[in-house]
Amino acid sequence: MKKILITGGAGFLGSHLTRRLLDFGHEVTVMDNLFTGNKSNIYDFQDNPRFTFLLQDVTQPFWGQFDDIYNLACPASPIHYQRNPVETIKTSFLGMMNVLELALKTKARVLHTSTSEIYGDPMVHPQPETYWGNVNTIGIRSCYDEGKRAAESLCVDYRREYGVDARLVRIFNTYGPNMHPQDGRVISNFIMQALRNEDITLYGDGEQTRSFQYVDDLIDAFVALMDKDRTELEAACGKAGFDIPVINAGNPGEFTIKELAETILELIPESTGKLVYHPLPKDDPQRRKPDITLAKTLLGWEPKVPLKEGLVPAIEYFRTHL
Amino acid sequence: MKKILITGGAGFLGSHLTRRLLDFGHEVTVMDNLFTGNKSNIYDFQDNPRFTFLLQDVTQPFWGQFDDIYNLACPASPIHYQRNPVETIKTSFLGMMNVLELALKTKARVLHTSTSEIYGDPMVHPQPETYWGNVNTIGIRSCYDEGKRAAESLCVDYRREYGVDARLVRIFNTYGPNMHPQDGRVISNFIMQALRNEDITLYGDGEQTRSFQYVDDLIDAFVALMDKDRTELEAACGKAGFDIPVINAGNPGEFTIKELAETILELIPESTGKLVYHPLPKDDPQRRKPDITLAKTLLGWEPKVPLKEGLVPAIEYFRTHL
Repeated sequence: MKKILITGGAGFLGSHLTRRLLDFGHEVTVMDNLFTGNKSNIYDFQDNPRFTFLLQDVTQPFWGQFDDIYNLACPASPIHYQRNPVETIKTSFLGMMNVLELALKTKARVLHTSTSEIYGDPMVHPQPETYWGNVNTIGIRSCYDEGKRAAESLCVDYRREYGVDARLVRIFNTYGPNMHPQDGRVISNFIMQALRNEDITLYGDGEQTRSFQYVDDLIDAFVALMDKDRTELEAACGKAGFDIPVINAGNPGEFTIKELAETILELIPESTGKLVYHPLPKDDPQRRKPDITLAKTLLGWEPKVPLKEGLVPAIEYFRTHL
Repeated sequence: MKKILITGGAGFLGSHLTRRLLDFGHEVTVMDNLFTGNKSNIYDFQDNPRFTFLLQDVTQPFWGQFDDIYNLACPASPIHYQRNPVETIKTSFLGMMNVLELALKTKARVLHTSTSEIYGDPMVHPQPETYWGNVNTIGIRSCYDEGKRAAESLCVDYRREYGVDARLVRIFNTYGPNMHPQDGRVISNFIMQALRNEDITLYGDGEQTRSFQYVDDLIDAFVALMDKDRTELEAACGKAGFDIPVINAGNPGEFTIKELAETILELIPESTGKLVYHPLPKDDPQRRKPDITLAKTLLGWEPKVPLKEGLVPAIEYFRTHL
């Protein structure tokens, strides 16, 4: 049994991770400020004596003795992170700093959740971990993208300078139950619109592609990366040409936004929603697809759930949250 | 007369800016932790009643009522910023945050000194302000590059969200008196080596190019950007297609490292130093040259001092600091 802290644990990904780690028999503390996280996501765990909820903002210093810290705290959808850009970039940077300071002082292991957004509007396709990205430092998405890039740098700096055992996962589009129904992201938008018999709004011509990963696959990657013995992991990374443990986690299956919309309508046959097209917002990436060779090599991990299968529980979740 | 704060004011650029602003009749407070800054750089101003020195680290919150804040605090040469990468990225981000918080509460105007390093190893040449850069988030230079990128984002976030009057200058290679003789950068290295009759060490084949700007030209750009009326500046930026006041400041004259070495040897004819070649360090940018069209358009600014002329006082300074 390990003592584990999950920052942002009441969010979409955090709640799935919490369930998994409690199922493994660990003691889990969820820290969340409930800005985008939601108490209903962790309601099931309330009576579990191995579960603790802590209402706390990750930008404020905190203390506690944990074996593992999963750093998930940060609003992740444009609609949320652009509401208060200053808080977004502070959450990313100061949150990471507080986690790393705690890890340094208590010898905790850290898994930091970075994002495919650090690749920005990529000019290399698919994106391997060695790609440096194409991000606007002063655009309207930069509070998130640059905040996350700086958090990665901070992570590797604490690692190189102080030996903190920090590991990075760059998360690509992920979906599943507990997604925020109003997060403005494409999967939740489309499902909600289809269920409400509204128009399905596509931006641009709908030919931009995305990869969509079912949440269970991502949680597998988190746990596989975090549970790997440090010496073994570092040796494997070194063999693969990396001095830093950093993996992409996403489903390389590539779908256009239009295909996604059509698949969702297929799974909600009673919907009367129709596809409509709107202009593309500023700095919206045109294509993004993970190269997951490294995660396969290091962890033997790859996603298992096909889009059509994963959409079923996701749609079911939204249906009950209409 | 304005009340002005210069963070990092005891450094190379800060000391020149201090002199200029004191000459204009302003009241200047220099804040510096003296990590790379040096009391000897500000020794001349000690008896000036309009000058105050404050020994303080920019990562710690501070308070004071100023009209203008110039944010220059950050170690800027690899040899210094890689000594303590965690402190470097904190200085960049937390320093910027403290400056912006103070500016927000006291309605001060801010000039933040960013860097051509945010362009990384550029794939566009020369680099206009619209270029997004090519930077490794997890490399050994990332503590500086990503820290500076995040500081830019923070700046524009405070601007967009709270209306803070923040202006950005991206500084390209600058040289002149008061440079740190041991900063490990190419101009100081070459001059010191030539003066000491040592080998002049070039990395790679010496064909990588740099732009070299004399410090007085840069200070002109700082003051021109800072003194511009806000409404006028924003109108001019808008007309040029920018919603953020951000300019490159550098000398577009392009020289190879080898040409630089040869020019320095020409100006120090008594030197017995010879050119020798070493392997290129990791992530070292191959070419960098500013596109300064925007600064010309907005401010009528362009550099005036040719390399051969600016090197004379720089060499003189180093000669007295051997």
